[in-house]
Amino acid sequence: MINITLLGTSGLLPTPERALTSALLGCGGTSILFDCGEGTQTAARKASCSLAKVDIIALTHYHGDHIFGLPGLMQTMFSMGRTDPLYITGPTGLEENMEPILKLAGELSYEVVLFHMGARMRICDIIKGLPDNMFLSAFLTEHRTVSCGYSFELERGRRFLPDRAGELGVPVDMWKTLQHGKSVTVGDMTVTPDMVLGEPREGIKFIFTGDTSPCRSLVEAARGADLMICEATYGDDDQKDMAKERGHMTFSQAAQCAKDAGAKRLWLAHYSQRIKDPGDYLHFAADIFPDTVCGYDGLSTELVHRM
Amino acid sequence: MINITLLGTSGLLPTPERALTSALLGCGGTSILFDCGEGTQTAARKASCSLAKVDIIALTHYHGDHIFGLPGLMQTMFSMGRTDPLYITGPTGLEENMEPILKLAGELSYEVVLFHMGARMRICDIIKGLPDNMFLSAFLTEHRTVSCGYSFELERGRRFLPDRAGELGVPVDMWKTLQHGKSVTVGDMTVTPDMVLGEPREGIKFIFTGDTSPCRSLVEAARGADLMICEATYGDDDQKDMAKERGHMTFSQAAQCAKDAGAKRLWLAHYSQRIKDPGDYLHFAADIFPDTVCGYDGLSTELVHRM
Repeated sequence: MINITLLGTSGLLPTPERALTSALLGCGGTSILFDCGEGTQTAARKASCSLAKVDIIALTHYHGDHIFGLPGLMQTMFSMGRTDPLYITGPTGLEENMEPILKLAGELSYEVVLFHMGARMRICDIIKGLPDNMFLSAFLTEHRTVSCGYSFELERGRRFLPDRAGELGVPVDMWKTLQHGKSVTVGDMTVTPDMVLGEPREGIKFIFTGDTSPCRSLVEAARGADLMICEATYGDDDQKDMAKERGHMTFSQAAQCAKDAGAKRLWLAHYSQRIKDPGDYLHFAADIFPDTVCGYDGLSTELVHRM
Repeated sequence: MINITLLGTSGLLPTPERALTSALLGCGGTSILFDCGEGTQTAARKASCSLAKVDIIALTHYHGDHIFGLPGLMQTMFSMGRTDPLYITGPTGLEENMEPILKLAGELSYEVVLFHMGARMRICDIIKGLPDNMFLSAFLTEHRTVSCGYSFELERGRRFLPDRAGELGVPVDMWKTLQHGKSVTVGDMTVTPDMVLGEPREGIKFIFTGDTSPCRSLVEAARGADLMICEATYGDDDQKDMAKERGHMTFSQAAQCAKDAGAKRLWLAHYSQRIKDPGDYLHFAADIFPDTVCGYDGLSTELVHRM
């Protein structure tokens, strides 16, 4: 199961009605924060979420509205006595952009580890002791600066087939070893997990786009996603030119990306200040991708494996 | 007239209920922001105040809860097309502490001028073209780091005495010159302003303490203040030891400072997270200084000259 909470839905400026766009993911004992603009810690408190135990902060890019909440959050973690390392990742320029932030945050009670994303990183390779079925990936997006989106996947183990194990004469006390992907020896026969596990089963995939124009890499990354939180800075189709110029997209373009990717659900976010009620523009998206929701601060869901 | 709005009243952490302590002063065409923690720009919007035209930001010290809102505010001013210089002052360490903030804020459309306070600065010596009767002063306070509070004074011109001017034979078209503090020549007599102006009149004084334990410099600076916004981190008298250790004060200590200074009104602010309802502790202050109000986000007033 993956818990997702949308902490904010505003672009560029935090407002009393909408915090800057950010999302919190909880899964298998770990917690990942996507972006951290000014006010994200307050938005989390409003949404009754704790950021104290966030393990990883994944930054989509280094514009102020996505990172200016970091020094305050880091000091809050310090004042709460954190000792666990805090892992922070982002696209090219991470060290350079984090330098003034770390300087502002000052001396902390925990280590801040900056890391660059490999192609598809197993979370347990970053944070030891966690289950081995969670993966974080970054994909490049198209904005006015180097930027990326993130994909989080919870893999589902293949079903164990007790009948098959029985036929092969594997004693019950060896089943767990096979379930954990290791071979066992029964008499003079080696039984591999492949021999007693069913077909691969679909996992759960979550996408957080960051700021971007519609692009192929996003559609590829979001292929079959269970939930995609997508930037949708502009409501009206008439604003496509402006959206392109500024490296953003409209409601309908976000919907088209979700449709092209075969995603299952879409939450819109990162609204321009001009949008008073995102619901006024929902039809632009829902006409293309019916499972669209206008995201709002505090919107939360649980993504579970399908039966 | 001086307009004062208390933008936030929290200490250390911004919360959904209380923004970090900050106050906005407007007077005679200028605008001064005292401290700027994370979320101050949102707090200003909540209070229907604009920070776009703030001329001076006066920082009491460099702890994060008083400065982490600067990069975002500076970028917002940029995105609104500001071209007027922004003047920022603070105690010793200004350049060093502003360096990472300026780096985060990045390229701006306006100049940021860091300046150190003289003893009592005439606002028009900082910002040309403003009236010459407004003064800003800093006074050192006692906190865990170098810190100061601020006093803003609006001097009141001496009353012009038309009867006296008439007796001296000053033509009416010369009155304005005298009212502006310049001498005129009538026949072979020099008439100085002193000759046609009444007794000095009391001006208006506003005090913003920043974080501090009770101290003599604060009491001296606040002498006769019309309004004093004073930190009051802890509610209960039992917390005096903790307050002292951490460089703060209790409600009753703030009240004692106001009383000792002969201030006219006191607004408490910078509450600890432990204080749910500051009203629960008001009696500790009001027993000592009856004109105490528990400050809240958005509390606003106009300070006017007494008749």
